[in-house]
Amino acid sequence: MKIAIIGATGMAGTALYKEGVSRGHDVTAIVRHKDKAVSLFGNGVKVIEKDVFDLTKSDLEGFDVIVNAFATAPAKAYLHLDLAAKLVGLFRETQSPRLFFILGAASLLDENGKLFLDTLKTVPEAASWISIPTEAYKTLNFLRSIENVNWVGVSPSAEFVAGEATVPVLGKDHLLSSSNGKSIVTSGTMAVAILNEIENPQFIGTRFTVCNQ
Amino acid sequence: MKIAIIGATGMAGTALYKEGVSRGHDVTAIVRHKDKAVSLFGNGVKVIEKDVFDLTKSDLEGFDVIVNAFATAPAKAYLHLDLAAKLVGLFRETQSPRLFFILGAASLLDENGKLFLDTLKTVPEAASWISIPTEAYKTLNFLRSIENVNWVGVSPSAEFVAGEATVPVLGKDHLLSSSNGKSIVTSGTMAVAILNEIENPQFIGTRFTVCNQ
Repeated sequence: MKIAIIGATGMAGTALYKEGVSRGHDVTAIVRHKDKAVSLFGNGVKVIEKDVFDLTKSDLEGFDVIVNAFATAPAKAYLHLDLAAKLVGLFRETQSPRLFFILGAASLLDENGKLFLDTLKTVPEAASWISIPTEAYKTLNFLRSIENVNWVGVSPSAEFVAGEATVPVLGKDHLLSSSNGKSIVTSGTMAVAILNEIENPQFIGTRFTVCNQ
Repeated sequence: MKIAIIGATGMAGTALYKEGVSRGHDVTAIVRHKDKAVSLFGNGVKVIEKDVFDLTKSDLEGFDVIVNAFATAPAKAYLHLDLAAKLVGLFRETQSPRLFFILGAASLLDENGKLFLDTLKTVPEAASWISIPTEAYKTLNFLRSIENVNWVGVSPSAEFVAGEATVPVLGKDHLLSSSNGKSIVTSGTMAVAILNEIENPQFIGTRFTVCNQ
């Protein structure tokens, strides 16, 4: 399939790019700096070198799936919502490309039904980064109001770290726990789960979550 | 003040344009068809002739206020939300221009605290137009999540009809009733209320409602 990855040189994007290519897909990295993509993925990498907010419909409409692994600094966290709104606006009343959003864990519920974002807000020094989970939560709520776009969201577990793939365990709206007792997912496992979902769609217009087994 | 009106040739926009000019403001009509603006407002009308989704930051950043009186057919009602997201995205982290949204009455509460949208859904044949109040309600919810943009929303009363100005009565989140027992606002009264709010801001980052006295 033709897959575009926004933010392909970030932690999630890098694992996704490699997993996609290893499965034989035609993967394009959408990045601000082509040099970084070449250094990570080699000279053969297909790149669209653009600020995401300059992307046009014609840049994107040939893809089967666009995975949004965009990341930003906390002071610009609102760009997550703006980018989701932009992508939705470009592809109203279409089925393709499918829009695949990596949304953060804050919108998940813990075993008591408490929003994980509310727990995160109580963490010392949360003020310095809480804008990122807050905006990711807003982005999911925005997407949940959208009916005529082919979107799916994925939330990592409480910890989302670089690392090799294990077997992904999937859930819907609750934080998952791994066999070691932690709620953790590695970038490799996330990439496997996302590629599985791309190849065999199970979650249409909704969000799922992934943890390491 | 420098005021731009999106949808200036519609019912709300026409009254707004006339009220703004009569108060000595520098008013620009943002319209798809200049001819229609000229026929309504005369050869002296200042126009930006563009599809709203082609507007750029440089088209808009010189204005003190942008009033969004955009209207569309029910099949394209989602464009209300997309346009709000576009305007928000253009003016993040700014105080000017102030973004002024006409939002519909569906997001108001009746005397029992019931959302007016839920009442509208029960009206016979609502299916043919319910997308418009539904998307206006989503737009308000979207705006309520926005913290770094200078926005204000205004909801008309249950009936919003063309007509001369009376004295506007203002409220916040509940449907108002006029002295004749109806919940009604005319385009003239709405224009007076909006120009009052532009000249003397009382509602910052929130929504108010207007009815005829």
